[in-house]
Amino acid sequence: MEKIRKIISKIGSLDYQLMEKTQIRIDNLTKPRGSLGRLEELAKCIAGITGKENPSLKNKVIFTLAGDHGVTEERISAFPKEVTPQMVYNFINGGAGINVLARHVGARVVIVDSGVACDLKPHKDLLVKKAGYGTKNMTKGPAMAREDAVKAVENGIEVFEQEFKKGIDIAGTGDMGIGNTTASSAITAAITGAAVEEITGRGTGLDDMAYRNKVQVIKKALQLNKPDSKDPIDVLSKVGGFEIGGLAGIILAAASMRVPVVIDGFISGAAALIAYQLKPKVKNYMIAAHCSVEKGHRIILNYIGLKPFLDLNLRLGEGTGAALGINLAEAGVKILSEMATFKNAGVSEKE
Amino acid sequence: MEKIRKIISKIGSLDYQLMEKTQIRIDNLTKPRGSLGRLEELAKCIAGITGKENPSLKNKVIFTLAGDHGVTEERISAFPKEVTPQMVYNFINGGAGINVLARHVGARVVIVDSGVACDLKPHKDLLVKKAGYGTKNMTKGPAMAREDAVKAVENGIEVFEQEFKKGIDIAGTGDMGIGNTTASSAITAAITGAAVEEITGRGTGLDDMAYRNKVQVIKKALQLNKPDSKDPIDVLSKVGGFEIGGLAGIILAAASMRVPVVIDGFISGAAALIAYQLKPKVKNYMIAAHCSVEKGHRIILNYIGLKPFLDLNLRLGEGTGAALGINLAEAGVKILSEMATFKNAGVSEKE
Repeated sequence: MEKIRKIISKIGSLDYQLMEKTQIRIDNLTKPRGSLGRLEELAKCIAGITGKENPSLKNKVIFTLAGDHGVTEERISAFPKEVTPQMVYNFINGGAGINVLARHVGARVVIVDSGVACDLKPHKDLLVKKAGYGTKNMTKGPAMAREDAVKAVENGIEVFEQEFKKGIDIAGTGDMGIGNTTASSAITAAITGAAVEEITGRGTGLDDMAYRNKVQVIKKALQLNKPDSKDPIDVLSKVGGFEIGGLAGIILAAASMRVPVVIDGFISGAAALIAYQLKPKVKNYMIAAHCSVEKGHRIILNYIGLKPFLDLNLRLGEGTGAALGINLAEAGVKILSEMATFKNAGVSEKE
Repeated sequence: MEKIRKIISKIGSLDYQLMEKTQIRIDNLTKPRGSLGRLEELAKCIAGITGKENPSLKNKVIFTLAGDHGVTEERISAFPKEVTPQMVYNFINGGAGINVLARHVGARVVIVDSGVACDLKPHKDLLVKKAGYGTKNMTKGPAMAREDAVKAVENGIEVFEQEFKKGIDIAGTGDMGIGNTTASSAITAAITGAAVEEITGRGTGLDDMAYRNKVQVIKKALQLNKPDSKDPIDVLSKVGGFEIGGLAGIILAAASMRVPVVIDGFISGAAALIAYQLKPKVKNYMIAAHCSVEKGHRIILNYIGLKPFLDLNLRLGEGTGAALGINLAEAGVKILSEMATFKNAGVSEKE
């Protein structure tokens, strides 16, 4: 827990003075005031996070963390659990959605085994940072021991610190783990207090019967484990996942180093919720890329107080929405650094 | 009118057979079915438009057309009319919002003088295709003669045809013209029949009094000129603008050559409305980039039946929203051509 406490203590305030200066600069660019809407918001926000007048987002890094979930025994997913390792190999080979979208926006993908249930073939592009070999079935007891929950978060912090040395100007979060919408729904219910039915979606594609079962499974896990809503590490250990804990660590570490972190969909949102409960100020460093089809995601965004930038009916995860969000963030900072002012361009101002 | 008729007659149906095949291909990619939401929709739509199995969007071109509006005499804009030519120079020098965002997405900007009120300094990057030196004040008579409205549209067609020779895989529309939200509101009211108050927004930033004046000016112009809602050329001539007519021509020409055309905001929307009234089928070739803050834009999108991809509170015009839309479209087609299938990646399918 020492590492988590240390990182949390380093999360400071935004540079509000620079944000004010940035707003004035934006208002002097050759366009009607406010006319670039949320791109302007991104520019100002990233200036405040980084403390840089002209932030450049050259090094874009998406962290895609994988983990397995014991609760798949309860048949809560449309896909078999073998898909978790199979998809990790797909990430390594560059054929998954996140690879395509990360290439499209010029981002690097860091693939992490945070807790896949088997040993994956070693590969130079795979970081192995296991907090365990899949979680336990949360309908029969806690998903993991408290010390493993701590380890999962600390592993995320370590991954970020290690990659930070290679340069990260903006980070994105992503996930892979069959069963992880079930874990994320349980986390969201435990922390926000919203009803399980209102949070739970169809994940990768459940039919009506399977959906009803998923809701019951989540309710059972919550009743049995009684996660303490005020103790996010307890919530993570009772009903969470290793990749979710890892992502919470990534988010906290990014904020501690003044790196904007673009939050992907529902699973990344559950991780953001844990990070937020550990240190509410971390919210200022988060950019909500999009709103997922998984209905619990909207509840998370409202709880933290984040307004998503995109609404494209995405529900893939992996960091795909984060990739698109990173691209918008880059557009925003380029507005700031590349647009002419009224004065420089010889354009008349508002009468 | 001959050129317009010829182009319109060339606008054919989408390749629905290929779209079905494309859907099957998309459903075999390593992701839950439908999980890339509207990106999948873009991929399928662009396959249907281009008739290509793996469309590549290498040549991205945004057409930014400028024109002046006589109605500025009625004080309906927060900016003086000198800003139109000043901004054209800004486009040429690469310092405007559209330049920044076009560079960001790898698009080329074609800058066109469709009817600026003065002669601009010649420049290799400026296409001069004037249908007139600014429109007339529409509160005192028609904005332009019917033959000038035809010429404006035909000029747009010619610009597209000329640039098409250099290669265009996807086009975007953009505008510049002080006073053109007034013209666009009048066009929208004339064609859709919606109330002027419901269509008219604050343009580049009007205060309450100036806004009320703008509404009155539009009402007066409509009462005086009585545009025929069934004759889009009549609407264009009575209350339109040269750049709006030009954009309608660009849209029609793109559709005739099976090039997807990404529609920017409110002014581009008014042009789309004219193109749509001339040939409803052109709608299938349009991609609505975003929904503008200008409230009339939503009315246009609903009337044509287009669902915007982005909602970022933009209201700059110039093609800035189109640039971001082009970027999403490219992400969509890359999904199609670069993602692995379940079979190739050895990933198990849904149980």
